[in-house]
Amino acid sequence: EDGQWLQGQHWPEGSIGRLMEPAPAVFDGDATVAQVIETLRPVVSHTLVTYVFVVDADRALTGIVAFRELAFARATQRLSEIMVSRPFSLQPQTAVLDAMREVVRRHYPVYPVCDADGRLIGVVRGAVIFEEQAFEISAQAGAMVGVEKEERLATPWQRALRFRHPWLQINLVTAFVAASVVGLFQGTVNRIVLLAVFIPVLSGQCSNTGCQSLAVTLRGMTLGEVGANRTRALLWKETWLGFVNGALTGLVAAIGMFWLARHQEHPQALMLAAITFVAMAGSCALSGVAGAAVPLALKRLGADPATASGIFLTTATDVVSMGLFLGLAAWLIA
Amino acid sequence: EDGQWLQGQHWPEGSIGRLMEPAPAVFDGDATVAQVIETLRPVVSHTLVTYVFVVDADRALTGIVAFRELAFARATQRLSEIMVSRPFSLQPQTAVLDAMREVVRRHYPVYPVCDADGRLIGVVRGAVIFEEQAFEISAQAGAMVGVEKEERLATPWQRALRFRHPWLQINLVTAFVAASVVGLFQGTVNRIVLLAVFIPVLSGQCSNTGCQSLAVTLRGMTLGEVGANRTRALLWKETWLGFVNGALTGLVAAIGMFWLARHQEHPQALMLAAITFVAMAGSCALSGVAGAAVPLALKRLGADPATASGIFLTTATDVVSMGLFLGLAAWLIA
Repeated sequence: EDGQWLQGQHWPEGSIGRLMEPAPAVFDGDATVAQVIETLRPVVSHTLVTYVFVVDADRALTGIVAFRELAFARATQRLSEIMVSRPFSLQPQTAVLDAMREVVRRHYPVYPVCDADGRLIGVVRGAVIFEEQAFEISAQAGAMVGVEKEERLATPWQRALRFRHPWLQINLVTAFVAASVVGLFQGTVNRIVLLAVFIPVLSGQCSNTGCQSLAVTLRGMTLGEVGANRTRALLWKETWLGFVNGALTGLVAAIGMFWLARHQEHPQALMLAAITFVAMAGSCALSGVAGAAVPLALKRLGADPATASGIFLTTATDVVSMGLFLGLAAWLIA
Repeated sequence: EDGQWLQGQHWPEGSIGRLMEPAPAVFDGDATVAQVIETLRPVVSHTLVTYVFVVDADRALTGIVAFRELAFARATQRLSEIMVSRPFSLQPQTAVLDAMREVVRRHYPVYPVCDADGRLIGVVRGAVIFEEQAFEISAQAGAMVGVEKEERLATPWQRALRFRHPWLQINLVTAFVAASVVGLFQGTVNRIVLLAVFIPVLSGQCSNTGCQSLAVTLRGMTLGEVGANRTRALLWKETWLGFVNGALTGLVAAIGMFWLARHQEHPQALMLAAITFVAMAGSCALSGVAGAAVPLALKRLGADPATASGIFLTTATDVVSMGLFLGLAAWLIA
């Protein structure tokens, strides 16, 4: 009978059911402490038994007894008298990351797994859940730039290529979108080539400002800190932070632009510096709010909030930052 | 006496000592099972006791007894007969992430902590170590772009600004380095303004290719997969992957360049396309190897391998990709 519990293949990938093992010590509530100890004595010499599970006639889980309770009980007491009733249990179809949030404070060595009717169908060791959790969380930074969580250091390059390449082609398409913004203003760039020099500066700053916001938001989602009533405050905070960061770095960049434009004897050095400042402050504010909005939107759409979030984010920041910068220059100078 | 174990403030930040609690059940090896059970009976009603710790006259930890062993033992047996001798223990100065690697397979609910002389000075709950671990690992994606691990969603914006802003100024300096490469070739960009259109494409592709490699390498380091004898193989694999990815996306970008150059009736459209292809393949190969090399180098220098790794990486990829692209154009066309 135990064999059927091991058929984890029936449960979805990444679910608790896939990590299940058979429960080694299952008793009726009428069994006495002495009976349980004598029955288990030969078992514990070769199997690690952590809890005694108590089930009813339908195999529904009614209680759990730790050996601590067995040690303090009288030999004639019944399990039903000393057990913890209505114990915590996991469902086989629950995703590991969701289960992890339920068990992080409990940290039991072993969790019972029950089906929809409450029947005990197996156990999952806490260590297995947490190994899985470290595996999942450590995959997030890669997911942001299009790395599958299955990819490990030992993954052969052909397989790594198959995992990573599609996202790079998607990134290329989005990069063309950003490039087309520059293309729109080719005439302006042609007249003021100094603008081309500042494109990587602006793009790099916005991308980094946005990625800071993205990383903080994703981490908050992972650690379960993003409540429905906190998203508005989060979006405002990241907009403001992006603006202040952009204004301060924009000031330095504007000084650099002014110096360079004067050096090249450009007649409108001050205007170029002002445009650099406004473009940096404005597009960093937008990068900040986009960094928080992208994973929230992905989650609302039912997708994994980390997957390719960095790719979507940099497209948005590139388009806005270069559009604002070159658009202002075209409007005010050229 | 227990009070002194709680003075965790003496241990370094992020160490096991900071997470320590006093051990609630400590006995001499000569104590009998019946004595221990009677002594603990009033204690377990208000304190969670998981293990009985056995110490010698100097308070050195000699063994651990689980309640499972107490349940199966005779009342007259002594702890020294049923204890697990030379038990696993943690040291108070050990960093939490290092301790985590030691305990992940064990997954005990509680670990004894002993000083250099083997004396039991406290216990650490496994749940506390794992919460700390989730906190540390989830901070990595942010660390790559200059977010402190102390920053949470609830961190006030002023404090978040103080955390994030210095790295953005550093990013600005490195962006100026990349910009100066474009500045070197201002004359070339001036003659072929189409090059300016492709700068964000090249920069975006290299940055994403490099970040994929960076994320995979950092994750391997976190999961303890990077051995000293595997770094060379890792660097080669990422170079090759970067090259193949760059060649395939470079082909698409080259077609785009050719189409655009023909559309604008540029006389050397084919050469521009060839330069785009070579620059993409070459600089993506370098981005791949840089993504793996940056965290390895940071670790060898004694720094945290994740911190600002994304900032260092994109500087390198920007300088190389734009230098190669504009340099080839200056040499072969302009």
